[in-house]
Amino acid sequence: MYCQSCREEYGSEEAGTCKECYEEASETEEELHREIEHLKSLLSFLRLSPPPLSPPHTSSSASGLLLLHSLADSSASASSSSSSVPAHRAVLVSRSPVFKAMLDNEMEESRSGVIKIPDASTKVLRSFIDYLYMAETTLDEDIAPELLILAEKYQVNHLKVFCERYMTSKVNHENAIACYVFAHRHNAKQLLDASLSLIIENMATLRVREEYKELVERDPRLVVELYEAYLCRQANLASTKDSNAKV
Amino acid sequence: MYCQSCREEYGSEEAGTCKECYEEASETEEELHREIEHLKSLLSFLRLSPPPLSPPHTSSSASGLLLLHSLADSSASASSSSSSVPAHRAVLVSRSPVFKAMLDNEMEESRSGVIKIPDASTKVLRSFIDYLYMAETTLDEDIAPELLILAEKYQVNHLKVFCERYMTSKVNHENAIACYVFAHRHNAKQLLDASLSLIIENMATLRVREEYKELVERDPRLVVELYEAYLCRQANLASTKDSNAKV
Repeated sequence: MYCQSCREEYGSEEAGTCKECYEEASETEEELHREIEHLKSLLSFLRLSPPPLSPPHTSSSASGLLLLHSLADSSASASSSSSSVPAHRAVLVSRSPVFKAMLDNEMEESRSGVIKIPDASTKVLRSFIDYLYMAETTLDEDIAPELLILAEKYQVNHLKVFCERYMTSKVNHENAIACYVFAHRHNAKQLLDASLSLIIENMATLRVREEYKELVERDPRLVVELYEAYLCRQANLASTKDSNAKV
Repeated sequence: MYCQSCREEYGSEEAGTCKECYEEASETEEELHREIEHLKSLLSFLRLSPPPLSPPHTSSSASGLLLLHSLADSSASASSSSSSVPAHRAVLVSRSPVFKAMLDNEMEESRSGVIKIPDASTKVLRSFIDYLYMAETTLDEDIAPELLILAEKYQVNHLKVFCERYMTSKVNHENAIACYVFAHRHNAKQLLDASLSLIIENMATLRVREEYKELVERDPRLVVELYEAYLCRQANLASTKDSNAKV
């Protein structure tokens, strides 16, 4: 008989489904694709354009100001400070419980219309605002960790997950220890697991690495956790071998 | 052999897929479900809360004013008129090219901060604004056509499709002629097709209906189109019968 999907011949021991279930599954898949198209069109409808930066803002000079932007004035440049990023109050409030607390209560930020974000470059701030408006932004290996820190600080969990997923995809032999330390500090479970398993797979070369020596100096407890994870894995491997041997 | 999906026995003439394709299809389905979850979470992140109505606004009295709401003041009630609906300029501009033209240029609406929307009740206007902020709103058979008209006027195509889909699901023997006329007037192709096929399926009783007689008086060209569609369908049926008879 012939498979209706790959069109190849197969014997009865290789049988998957009956015809009816095959057809149902194809219909389900089509429905799911239609739902995906529908959700994507809703997303593109809901995305907002962030307010424009006036030319001096596009520099990547150190900055750290969010300037609240009156929606009654959305096309004007919002520049009273030369290194600030404009944003709409309603958007900030809806995306971050921290901004909500700042702006819904009579705090300094609410009165002044300016939120100070220490240590963030205009470039990172711009990326942050882009995500708050559009649920997407372009990441690179410099921006992602800085943005993750902002996301954590202002409790924009969606953005934190977005950055963490990116960083996890970039873990390699060279940056594994740095990622492990970063993940620990910022409660990034997925990144922690990925970097940890890369490290313990290469345990033999660990002790000669510069970052390892620095870490022993700076934060020996983290190194202890590394060894514990390593031992735990060794034990698991041993018991798997044992049970395989018995079978 | 047994189907891996429904677990029932089947013969080789009922074979659907081989095992490998069955497993691949299951994986694909899981991936699609994950993508759907992801898109839904992005949607819920992007939805904004519309500005609150102060109590007098919640009445369904005739209204027709959109009051531009400064985002610097998003928690205050925006009431200078007692029957207006507050909205943020940035949201209106991003969702509707008509609002964009009004508000980006120095038109009266841009200066006054008030957009007059003739003939729309506060209830419908509220529903309109809800959709612009959240890409969802609750419809009923009274609201849907009024909202579709607003969506058409302000070129919020996404909302027009949303209303049309709802109205199409509600077409029945009683309202088919009214829906047909409405769909014609507002270029609602899906609704037009659905109402037209219901009408021509019940052609025998058409001429005794009150709405039919009214339509002949008011817009005889639409009635002509009805008959043309009917004849066209008759001809199709006849040719299908013919070719079946030959086989």
